[in-house]
Amino acid sequence: MSVERTLHHFPLDPASRQVRLALGEKRLPFVEVQVRYWEGPTEFLKLNPSGLPPVLIETKHQRTTVIAENRAILEHIEEQEPEPALLGREPGERAEARRLLQWFDRKFDNEVNGFLLHEKMEKRLLRLGAPDLSSLRRGRDALRQHMDYIEGLLNTRDWLAGRRMSLADFAAAAHLSVIDYFGDVPWKDFPATKTWYMKLKSRPAFRPILADRWPGLAPVAHYDDLDF
Amino acid sequence: MSVERTLHHFPLDPASRQVRLALGEKRLPFVEVQVRYWEGPTEFLKLNPSGLPPVLIETKHQRTTVIAENRAILEHIEEQEPEPALLGREPGERAEARRLLQWFDRKFDNEVNGFLLHEKMEKRLLRLGAPDLSSLRRGRDALRQHMDYIEGLLNTRDWLAGRRMSLADFAAAAHLSVIDYFGDVPWKDFPATKTWYMKLKSRPAFRPILADRWPGLAPVAHYDDLDF
Repeated sequence: MSVERTLHHFPLDPASRQVRLALGEKRLPFVEVQVRYWEGPTEFLKLNPSGLPPVLIETKHQRTTVIAENRAILEHIEEQEPEPALLGREPGERAEARRLLQWFDRKFDNEVNGFLLHEKMEKRLLRLGAPDLSSLRRGRDALRQHMDYIEGLLNTRDWLAGRRMSLADFAAAAHLSVIDYFGDVPWKDFPATKTWYMKLKSRPAFRPILADRWPGLAPVAHYDDLDF
Repeated sequence: MSVERTLHHFPLDPASRQVRLALGEKRLPFVEVQVRYWEGPTEFLKLNPSGLPPVLIETKHQRTTVIAENRAILEHIEEQEPEPALLGREPGERAEARRLLQWFDRKFDNEVNGFLLHEKMEKRLLRLGAPDLSSLRRGRDALRQHMDYIEGLLNTRDWLAGRRMSLADFAAAAHLSVIDYFGDVPWKDFPATKTWYMKLKSRPAFRPILADRWPGLAPVAHYDDLDF
């Protein structure tokens, strides 16, 4: 039953981080391969035609399965390694966790990352010049709206999707952790979110994320500080 | 074990159509409520804070579950009503179907719908004026690239994700059917895709989709023609 896993990922990609957190939380070891996806490497396009990380490759009984895209990987891991359950057990819990997965991967990604991370990260990786200030402002304004929403949920729930920690927490933390790397999360205005993030940040699965560094992109000073 | 289902949807929304096709294929009856989501109705925001359809409401043993967003609903239906299986049974099949679900909901949606459907549908619903021709062209160019990709898959596979019909086919057909409503699918240049779409179009689950009409938005003449 031993499974060998290789994860192709980019350290500062929120989708990749969701998978690293889920694998870490389930204590499933994996070999990592870092992908410079913005350079469109031909070999990687064979693994995922969209050209985007993450891609998980599993080998079990000499049979190899390629699983591309974060949602596919998260659902796969949950089916293959159900304990500890990260999607909830009741249909209502699972629905709520999955609703939030879609919220972060589509709405947050479009409204926040499409501006903030595009300006601060992608433009540097692609050498597209200095950040555009009005796009940065637009991304920061959207981030505050999303944090209002998260704060509201956490004022009535222990974890984002309800009483139990779930993939929804990892999705949110994966996104916020990348934005935090660039120093743009206004933690002090969102105390419940800050407390929630401190709890996640101190989990063993989070350690590799806090150790991430990318050449030419330095993190903000408090990035890996557990008591920020 | 009787379950009462109500689906809140918009007839020309690709995400809603995926769910209608999956429910239809599994022969699960449901009451439908049409949502004018672009008007941001307050009642609907309580069901789904993102403001987007579809939302499925299930009542079973007097217990109500709200499932919002298409991926959450598709996974939920598959878990609750596994037959006929629409995600495949093998991990590799499921991974491939889910990869394609993400392809259509993110890549196709951003690159094609964000231009074509925005110009032809959303701008009319929102009374934002005439379509912008360069955006229409950009959407049509992207559509051709996506159809090249679909055609390539269908030249080596019976169905998009492999040997069996799956949710990946419904996702692709849901997206293409909305664009076809507006007459923008260049079927004649993609023979394998056309044959595949004819097969899907003739399934009973597709009938309600072909009967959709929205006031002020007339479909192209061949829209509901099974032999187009």
